[in-house]
Amino acid sequence: MSVLVCVTGRNNDKLLAELSAQLPNVKIYEWPHCENLAEIEFVLAWKAPESLWDQLPNLKVVQSYGAGVDAIDLNLIPEHVQVTRIVDTQLAEDMAEYVLAHTLAHKLRIKEYLIKQQQGQWKPKRAHSTQHVGILGMGELGLSVANKLTNNNFRVSGWSRSEKQIEHICHFHGDAQLSDFLKELDVLVCLLPLTAQTEEILNLDLFKLLPNNSLLINVARGKHLNESDLLTALEQDEIAAAVLDVFTEEPLPKSHAFWSHPKITITPHCAALTQLKTVCEQIADNVKAQQANTQLSNLVCKQKGY
Amino acid sequence: MSVLVCVTGRNNDKLLAELSAQLPNVKIYEWPHCENLAEIEFVLAWKAPESLWDQLPNLKVVQSYGAGVDAIDLNLIPEHVQVTRIVDTQLAEDMAEYVLAHTLAHKLRIKEYLIKQQQGQWKPKRAHSTQHVGILGMGELGLSVANKLTNNNFRVSGWSRSEKQIEHICHFHGDAQLSDFLKELDVLVCLLPLTAQTEEILNLDLFKLLPNNSLLINVARGKHLNESDLLTALEQDEIAAAVLDVFTEEPLPKSHAFWSHPKITITPHCAALTQLKTVCEQIADNVKAQQANTQLSNLVCKQKGY
Repeated sequence: MSVLVCVTGRNNDKLLAELSAQLPNVKIYEWPHCENLAEIEFVLAWKAPESLWDQLPNLKVVQSYGAGVDAIDLNLIPEHVQVTRIVDTQLAEDMAEYVLAHTLAHKLRIKEYLIKQQQGQWKPKRAHSTQHVGILGMGELGLSVANKLTNNNFRVSGWSRSEKQIEHICHFHGDAQLSDFLKELDVLVCLLPLTAQTEEILNLDLFKLLPNNSLLINVARGKHLNESDLLTALEQDEIAAAVLDVFTEEPLPKSHAFWSHPKITITPHCAALTQLKTVCEQIADNVKAQQANTQLSNLVCKQKGY
Repeated sequence: MSVLVCVTGRNNDKLLAELSAQLPNVKIYEWPHCENLAEIEFVLAWKAPESLWDQLPNLKVVQSYGAGVDAIDLNLIPEHVQVTRIVDTQLAEDMAEYVLAHTLAHKLRIKEYLIKQQQGQWKPKRAHSTQHVGILGMGELGLSVANKLTNNNFRVSGWSRSEKQIEHICHFHGDAQLSDFLKELDVLVCLLPLTAQTEEILNLDLFKLLPNNSLLINVARGKHLNESDLLTALEQDEIAAAVLDVFTEEPLPKSHAFWSHPKITITPHCAALTQLKTVCEQIADNVKAQQANTQLSNLVCKQKGY
């Protein structure tokens, strides 16, 4: 069995070196440098070209190089091929810390005081209330964030497509319960997988369902957000502010209106950076599982898209 | 028994109204509007004039209007007079949240990314390590901060004047152990009471004992810090940055070098604001205890000064 790495738009030297170290007896090719594509049973993919999938007659596993599979068009993957993704527990911990840090920074007006410092102004104020945080998407990342916030005295509600029972958390599900979920939140955190159903779920209609003083934190994917709707919502005071770590186009273009917007805080897609070693261990385990014909880890349901 | 409120430099209308509501049968005067000072057995004091104490022949209790007693010259209080202070559990919780928020903000480079946003720059970086936080002063506030940080996966060490046993925390004490306490910290938090021994404890000698990449957070009193030594330490890279909520002179004077210093973050003495109602309940309880000749709460050791 051979592995094809098709992670486009970046330098993969370190990735290939680490994978080779962990899989000394497996042939690893980097796309497009592979003469005999019929060898390939396992593809590690991120933004692979659409034409790739038809050229792999013996493909058995597609391993997404990320926590989501939104960089792979699942409709193009043959039905018998298994799709897996990365589940990095450190990633979930980092994500939780990012959301806690920015929720607390909002509550304690850290940015507001920084701007006041730049203006030489001393203006003490009481902290924001920021008691109630809602999480869109209660997968591994959402759950990790929810636990961290609950442990720090925040009230947490969650929302997912389908029904779930989660201890200490008021859980909503489906379109019918979305407005009840949103109506009393101080902070809304988006941690959904990106699918056709969740693309641009953060739009003006949704912002109108949130309280006017609420804060949006998007740490999922840029395409969850309708960026021009956010500008409208902030202008119309439908919501108060946004913290964004992900964008439709990254790096965020120089001319983008978000850069200088006083109510928008930008971080450069740094909320949770994968650790190469951890990720490669997980990929190598799946390669070995496929070789041994045992159960793969972190399988994706192709119908749901996560 | 009558109570004298001598809290100078601010408007006390709300304080007097709340105290009167909680002590309907007690006469409450606001200094200097009290004709017969011999009536006064209980003084609520903050920055009272030195000449006051000699004029109160029947003084029994001085209640400090704050968590510290540094606004009262204890040498001027007759030996038989009891001194008490405010211990507000909400204050301890707020203080812990402030320190956690600013420790996380440092770790996750929130200020750094905000400046980068203002410059239109996209520069993702890994988070700072910020694993090990040391707390100078392990009283109620220090302990509350230590617990909050420990619960959020920080390693915490504490330092006090005298020996203590505290669960889950490596505790140092006295001058002899100060350098061992400081030498491996990522963050140093000052929560000491202000006494003759602790005034300007945050000086160049101490900064030299800290690692060069460390962060100072002062949430105690402005006078704990030698302000010009801090500027020297930052310039010489003895420490990396400082978050200051308290200053020798407040509001911080317009011309002060701290305002525009890129390594100093200023908040306007807002880390923990007392809740008038909670504080007045505690004062009223002490007035009633004195009337009933029972034990007062939160007595201060006049020799130690806290």
